[in-house]
Amino acid sequence: MWVVPEKDIAGLMTPEAAFDAVEAVFAAMARGDAYNFPVVREAIGHEDALYGFKGGFDASGLTLGLKAGGYWPNNQKHDLINHQSTIFLFDPDTGRVSAAVGGNLLTALRTAAASAVSSKYLAPKEARVLGMVGAGHQSAFQMRAAIRFGNFEKVIGWNPHPEMLSRLADTAAELGLPFEAVELDRLGAEADVIISITSSFAPILMSDHVKGPTHIAAMGTDTKGKQELDPALVARARLFTDEVAQSLSIGEFQHAAAQKTISAEEVTALGKVIIGDHEGRGDAEITIFDGTGVGLQDLAVAAAVVDLARQQGKAIEIGI
Amino acid sequence: MWVVPEKDIAGLMTPEAAFDAVEAVFAAMARGDAYNFPVVREAIGHEDALYGFKGGFDASGLTLGLKAGGYWPNNQKHDLINHQSTIFLFDPDTGRVSAAVGGNLLTALRTAAASAVSSKYLAPKEARVLGMVGAGHQSAFQMRAAIRFGNFEKVIGWNPHPEMLSRLADTAAELGLPFEAVELDRLGAEADVIISITSSFAPILMSDHVKGPTHIAAMGTDTKGKQELDPALVARARLFTDEVAQSLSIGEFQHAAAQKTISAEEVTALGKVIIGDHEGRGDAEITIFDGTGVGLQDLAVAAAVVDLARQQGKAIEIGI
Repeated sequence: MWVVPEKDIAGLMTPEAAFDAVEAVFAAMARGDAYNFPVVREAIGHEDALYGFKGGFDASGLTLGLKAGGYWPNNQKHDLINHQSTIFLFDPDTGRVSAAVGGNLLTALRTAAASAVSSKYLAPKEARVLGMVGAGHQSAFQMRAAIRFGNFEKVIGWNPHPEMLSRLADTAAELGLPFEAVELDRLGAEADVIISITSSFAPILMSDHVKGPTHIAAMGTDTKGKQELDPALVARARLFTDEVAQSLSIGEFQHAAAQKTISAEEVTALGKVIIGDHEGRGDAEITIFDGTGVGLQDLAVAAAVVDLARQQGKAIEIGI
Repeated sequence: MWVVPEKDIAGLMTPEAAFDAVEAVFAAMARGDAYNFPVVREAIGHEDALYGFKGGFDASGLTLGLKAGGYWPNNQKHDLINHQSTIFLFDPDTGRVSAAVGGNLLTALRTAAASAVSSKYLAPKEARVLGMVGAGHQSAFQMRAAIRFGNFEKVIGWNPHPEMLSRLADTAAELGLPFEAVELDRLGAEADVIISITSSFAPILMSDHVKGPTHIAAMGTDTKGKQELDPALVARARLFTDEVAQSLSIGEFQHAAAQKTISAEEVTALGKVIIGDHEGRGDAEITIFDGTGVGLQDLAVAAAVVDLARQQGKAIEIGI
């Protein structure tokens, strides 16, 4: 079993490797070569924790395994971040465990990579202004991936708690781009690509705010009840996601689906666009990618980092 | 993270530690302190493998995690056994992975321990003859645990392939007991405790075979379609299991339940007997324990072996 500890991930994983891994696994899902297993997610009744497993198998990449872990909201008292996870890979030829990889940073990187992949295929041509909704821990990862794989000239942003906007300003400065804090109506009118990454339980970005052509990556909703977008905005957009069933049940599109203003047939797996089975943006004014997060993304980035660690002699081998 | 490799389990784990761990976790389940998560089990379409996860949380033992792995029927070509699994424990206070433990031998030991625990609470008084149905890899573990925790004076056995009966004879000899190969009617008439451990898909032990008082531990059925016992035998017995819902869906009692000759109310969790909430055998002629195998058993024996390995300085510590 190869072990790649959490502390070594930052020095090993590259945004390019994460982007390539996520793009490839979305394509494999669309070709029917890869699928995600049913998600287990349990409120265990201890420390208010949510714990579970996201597994899958990619027969083209020969990646099998799961991410295990969850959300421990009281972890600050242990000097740990609240999201804790570990990714385990298995040899699909034998069933033996082949790797254990720290999953915390990889989760942020694969989520950022997913929204960057969506922008590659769905953003309007000549997208120059990036709009950020949300300024939490994940927003910096999202902005870095968007800038790296796009041609943005300016970042504008909004957050429910304006005092946190410094994270967006600092990250934009790190990337050499100007940043401006704006109200949501200006953000929706001026941004060519909007990344929404909050843990909101009520719509933030309203239909009236958004003037197309715009691509929106809605990355925050991964649980029943969470919501970032006005269902009317969803209803007027062309819709994409990582996994259709998950999007309609626990993703951003759960709300429009519940109101029956959209149907499952109107939601396209992003992988279909990647493999050329769907035109993508076409003449749509607004596209939305609902990034719900699937186990195969975790497995793909974990397999990539194990390869990098082995190439660089940094993977720890241990008999098990 | 503590690692306890598969090769070290045999030298570390004791039958007593497995018995105590399984007895304790069955009690915790009955008290409502421990529960199993939904089982994920997938035919992945590669190497005819079945792969999945059995997880759970025991709030009394503070044991959280899962067993991952499955059944790889072509593993002989890799010089590996077909059942391959690894158990991962997590710290329930923080969500961080705390141990990775080879799960192959532990699975056999926890399954044997479950049937021995069932005999402790359900076998007729003065049980002296042990009957074994099945002579596969697991039968030796079952016999060893039964003999260790019972007062048997003789072992009798039957197997669909008589040439394999030597395993039962050899194991009885190792334990210092006489062994006799018998037909099923003699086995059912003479054995006080019967352990059935086959991978049969049709009933083997028929109602006519069995003359009470007898306790039967049906340990082979863990999948839809598998079957070891005549449903008429099940219908006339007092019924116990590790987990009621699993027993009725994928365990031995699935067949009598489907025929509606038994109801869920007639099946009692063994833990209820352990904690004194159910009288157990009472005046029943026949008792049956349906051992379906739950994730909490795996976590309990894994936690026990990690403790033993740490006490003996044999656990490998690795940062992750």
